[in-house]
Amino acid sequence: MGEHKVLFLPHNIEIMVRDGENLIRAAIEAGVHINASCGGEGVCGKCRVIIEEGKVEGGITEKLNTEDIQAGYRQACLASIKSDLVVRVPIESAIDASVLKMQSTPRRTAHIKQMDFEELKEKGLFVPPVEKKYLELPEPTIQDNLSDLTRLVSYLKIKHDEHRLEVSLPVIRKIPDILREDGFRVTATLIRPVRDTGKTRISNIQSGNTSDRNYAIAMDIGTTTIYGQLINLITGSVLSEDADFNGQISFGEDVISRIIYAEKPEGLEKLHKAVINTVNKIIKKIIKQAGIDPDEISTITLAGNTTMTQLMLKVNPKYIRRAPYVPAANLYPPLRASDLGMELGNHVIALVYPEVSSYVGGDIVAGVMGSGMYRTDELTLFMDIGTNAEIVIGNREWLACAACSAGPAFEGGGIKFGMRATKGAIEDFSMDPLTFEPMNITIGNVRPKGICGSGLITIVATMFEIGVIDSGGKFNLDLNTRRIREVDDICEYVLAWAEETQIGRDIVLSEPDIDNLIRAKGAMYSGCLTLLEQVGLHIYDIERIFLAGGFGSYVNLEKAMTIGLLPETDVEKVIFIGNGSLLGAKMSSLTNRIRKDVAEVVIKMTNFELSETASYMDNYVAALFLPHTDLNQFPKLKARLDARRAPRK
Amino acid sequence: MGEHKVLFLPHNIEIMVRDGENLIRAAIEAGVHINASCGGEGVCGKCRVIIEEGKVEGGITEKLNTEDIQAGYRQACLASIKSDLVVRVPIESAIDASVLKMQSTPRRTAHIKQMDFEELKEKGLFVPPVEKKYLELPEPTIQDNLSDLTRLVSYLKIKHDEHRLEVSLPVIRKIPDILREDGFRVTATLIRPVRDTGKTRISNIQSGNTSDRNYAIAMDIGTTTIYGQLINLITGSVLSEDADFNGQISFGEDVISRIIYAEKPEGLEKLHKAVINTVNKIIKKIIKQAGIDPDEISTITLAGNTTMTQLMLKVNPKYIRRAPYVPAANLYPPLRASDLGMELGNHVIALVYPEVSSYVGGDIVAGVMGSGMYRTDELTLFMDIGTNAEIVIGNREWLACAACSAGPAFEGGGIKFGMRATKGAIEDFSMDPLTFEPMNITIGNVRPKGICGSGLITIVATMFEIGVIDSGGKFNLDLNTRRIREVDDICEYVLAWAEETQIGRDIVLSEPDIDNLIRAKGAMYSGCLTLLEQVGLHIYDIERIFLAGGFGSYVNLEKAMTIGLLPETDVEKVIFIGNGSLLGAKMSSLTNRIRKDVAEVVIKMTNFELSETASYMDNYVAALFLPHTDLNQFPKLKARLDARRAPRK
Repeated sequence: MGEHKVLFLPHNIEIMVRDGENLIRAAIEAGVHINASCGGEGVCGKCRVIIEEGKVEGGITEKLNTEDIQAGYRQACLASIKSDLVVRVPIESAIDASVLKMQSTPRRTAHIKQMDFEELKEKGLFVPPVEKKYLELPEPTIQDNLSDLTRLVSYLKIKHDEHRLEVSLPVIRKIPDILREDGFRVTATLIRPVRDTGKTRISNIQSGNTSDRNYAIAMDIGTTTIYGQLINLITGSVLSEDADFNGQISFGEDVISRIIYAEKPEGLEKLHKAVINTVNKIIKKIIKQAGIDPDEISTITLAGNTTMTQLMLKVNPKYIRRAPYVPAANLYPPLRASDLGMELGNHVIALVYPEVSSYVGGDIVAGVMGSGMYRTDELTLFMDIGTNAEIVIGNREWLACAACSAGPAFEGGGIKFGMRATKGAIEDFSMDPLTFEPMNITIGNVRPKGICGSGLITIVATMFEIGVIDSGGKFNLDLNTRRIREVDDICEYVLAWAEETQIGRDIVLSEPDIDNLIRAKGAMYSGCLTLLEQVGLHIYDIERIFLAGGFGSYVNLEKAMTIGLLPETDVEKVIFIGNGSLLGAKMSSLTNRIRKDVAEVVIKMTNFELSETASYMDNYVAALFLPHTDLNQFPKLKARLDARRAPRK
Repeated sequence: MGEHKVLFLPHNIEIMVRDGENLIRAAIEAGVHINASCGGEGVCGKCRVIIEEGKVEGGITEKLNTEDIQAGYRQACLASIKSDLVVRVPIESAIDASVLKMQSTPRRTAHIKQMDFEELKEKGLFVPPVEKKYLELPEPTIQDNLSDLTRLVSYLKIKHDEHRLEVSLPVIRKIPDILREDGFRVTATLIRPVRDTGKTRISNIQSGNTSDRNYAIAMDIGTTTIYGQLINLITGSVLSEDADFNGQISFGEDVISRIIYAEKPEGLEKLHKAVINTVNKIIKKIIKQAGIDPDEISTITLAGNTTMTQLMLKVNPKYIRRAPYVPAANLYPPLRASDLGMELGNHVIALVYPEVSSYVGGDIVAGVMGSGMYRTDELTLFMDIGTNAEIVIGNREWLACAACSAGPAFEGGGIKFGMRATKGAIEDFSMDPLTFEPMNITIGNVRPKGICGSGLITIVATMFEIGVIDSGGKFNLDLNTRRIREVDDICEYVLAWAEETQIGRDIVLSEPDIDNLIRAKGAMYSGCLTLLEQVGLHIYDIERIFLAGGFGSYVNLEKAMTIGLLPETDVEKVIFIGNGSLLGAKMSSLTNRIRKDVAEVVIKMTNFELSETASYMDNYVAALFLPHTDLNQFPKLKARLDARRAPRK
């Protein structure tokens, strides 16, 4: 169990892996190339390795004869690591030491970092937004027959020093019976004001002592997927979580098609109901999973992009897609969850993340809050990579942000064999620098169906570094491999032959695909440059990068820098925060300090409409190269390219 | 048209009356007795008078022959005054000058006084609770594409110096389209906080300039009847008003039966819906009558007794009727009218008058506010006379209050021929001090059906002053009149003979009826005494009396003092405020100053549970006489009685 040490020979690279890890995945993690076209189903039979020491499970197929098996040969893609290993990759062609040196560096994804409850407390950021107070009230007598509510409020003052209290109708409706249910022993739920000048709201009252049960919900309202977490406000832990596709998908895949649908008769109502239905499904599931009493939930915090937020609130989003792109509101007041159609007690307050602009929404603001970038001294770049990509640059002093229309390449859109990051997508890749044979790693270790965004980045970066494509994204047709070919005047590289795939066709990467990726990464990178220029800074000044969104967790950071998607920095400085929107919603559920800060942050975040910023187009055109017209912005890559290409002359 | 002068002979009493006034009503107003049993339908034929000068319409019946008519005889009950008149009341028995002197004094009802808008302004009490601000916003551009709401809020700051604004979901939902409807010319409705530390709420937004249209609704939620007014907040005038029976009546006539019904399954829900249905009917009618756009209404202010208030809010009232009589709340927060089921825009705020206790409710607090007694230096008695009667005593410094279970006598309950003040009820009365013949005046001038509360007070007071009953409420059986008789051991006085009535039976007032009235007035008077004792004051110290409720407008003040219902004061000091509950609701709609004051007033109002106050029972027993055991508390009456009775010895 636990971890095992795997030594790859002749590379002499050692890596630690989890027990049961697939051997071909361990190789690509280590940066060891093994030819493998079929993605890991044992079909191509190319990924033969020799287990010199230790034990694997599986890896024996009809493609290996008895002799091979006794000699220790296994198919890496089907072998699970069960002990420390010494694995030899057979050198079937004459490769000299320099080739071994040319292997990719170990795969580097971003560190995952999320602030936790203890850290909040340590940093003095913990200001409980909801507290429960237990009271044993004296029973009324004819000499002391104040109203039930006045009794409660008076004793909250006397016993807990609570002042400036306000109360809602549901509490007034409950109070007479609740007080008498357990002999005037009650617990009051107090929702604290975000600002000190506000009032504390008595949001609920329960009989007996329930002060050890106090919960909140955090939600990310994504265009595609909605995520929810049930949070224990006393421990800060996540008790349960769930995700589901946003029910609006049937009305259109992206925000623009949703906005258009919302303009149809009943369209807004339908979209509103669809998202609320999904929210309710998730609420129901996470409550059930956690096994708590729904009456103990006090708040729900929601973050989404501007369109998702307006649809959730049933606010017509039509002006979001028309110049000058005006959202209905930046800051939203605390709302009643039941007013939005959420199936939660009518005492539950819904907190909705504010928006900066029509295309820098609450999801990004939540990411800024959740990552803590608004509190740091370091110059930080926050990126949410996707079709609607957003960039925030700044620190505790200032924040500049912009939305980039990167196009759908990162999600597999506009790519001939592009697909979402689901089973069968090539998500990782390596290439033999002499034979140009591929090593395809697919999600689920099955035969490939297509290429997902993170795979695409790695493929293009690898090909560029090896010299299969040039900085303009064009194939070198002089290379000695049948995988590079021209079909109908379009150059392409065959990643997997038809018989190795699930789709029965050759899976290829073509020059137009590469063009699309270059345009997508160019849009993002030039967005960064343009924002930096606006504040008189350079790309070298960036000290920290936060990546948000599902995409960020899989992307090979060095490859992303190689194609010029990310500015070149020490990968240690890149931090992956996961679903930043959900993280921000969770942080706001845990502490009022974040809720207070967010109102200031959203005002501080200066929005740039890139299409209206003169230098953006120049920056964009300059970024339409691998990695960039100005290679000096990528000094490490420049050095690597120089080093590698020199001996080949 | 206009007014006419009427001189009654031989009394030589002159009175001014409206054109068309009924002659017999003019007589009783003047304090002139004319025998009249039948209530004004010409049946008894006793009210013959001679028109010596001037012109009347009607008054000729078959009971008068041609000679009589030519001589100027008319039946007063059927004659309308059409010019200045000289009217002689025929003296059919030998009455000397002293008898004429013994006529009742002119009927004195309370002055009607309601504070108006101008007075509020003069007294510096006008703090507008709702204001509308018109704005011409700059249209957004790509360089200035803040959200619609941020634009509105910013310009409210810049142009109108408005700070600390909050907004509600309905406004966010409306704002994108409303801003663009009339080129970013909009009017914002601002609801001011009651306390300076609160926030101003942007409750509505309308396109164009609507700042000259600003309305509110005031309502009195009575157990029997609900009254509503639509108020123009710019002029302070009442644009329309309406009343309807509280739809809860079918579930029980009084608060106790409603509380019992509310404990049945679905009972609370049914009662809540019933009252809200009536409220909605009235809202619809007054909006239609006034011809305004419902969207222009910003607030609805409601006052009712504690049970009515809780039922309206759907708060179980069951603990109101159980010792120690605890209401759910004293102060209610501002609520959303639509949350209560009211058919008003969801921007409309419902303000609910606070309660002092289970039996001193929002209707009384509203009366205290509307009358202005909480601002006066004079020691003031506030009385709402009825089955559930309430008393408030105090001034700007302090306020003491109590509920008295007077029983239903004032509403005709527990009286053999008692009835509500509707058509056919004897509402006024006079008696010939020598013949003991009655003068019955009925509501609607029709043959009598029974006796209403105000009639009962006048009858008993008149009989007491003439000596027909003694201070214990017992008939003097030695008097020479067949109207006083004993039936089944019960003494009674025949007000109208069977043939003169609508019911075909003799209408009588019996000793048990008088007992009931004495107990009712005794309860109220001893309530006053007990409250005064608690604060170390005497009945003589009262400087001002406010009467509230429908009852108060009809009651003959001197008669009410004669029976000991009201303390004896100069009638000029008694002010009738009409429906105090509605008045208070209206005042709170007009100025935040009243809304601010009310929270302090309700805390200041010290409630006494009379049943738990030791001296109450002693005071009650002492009050079970006409007017009281201690005649010194009624010095004027004592003087009158001494003067009248002396010559008859």
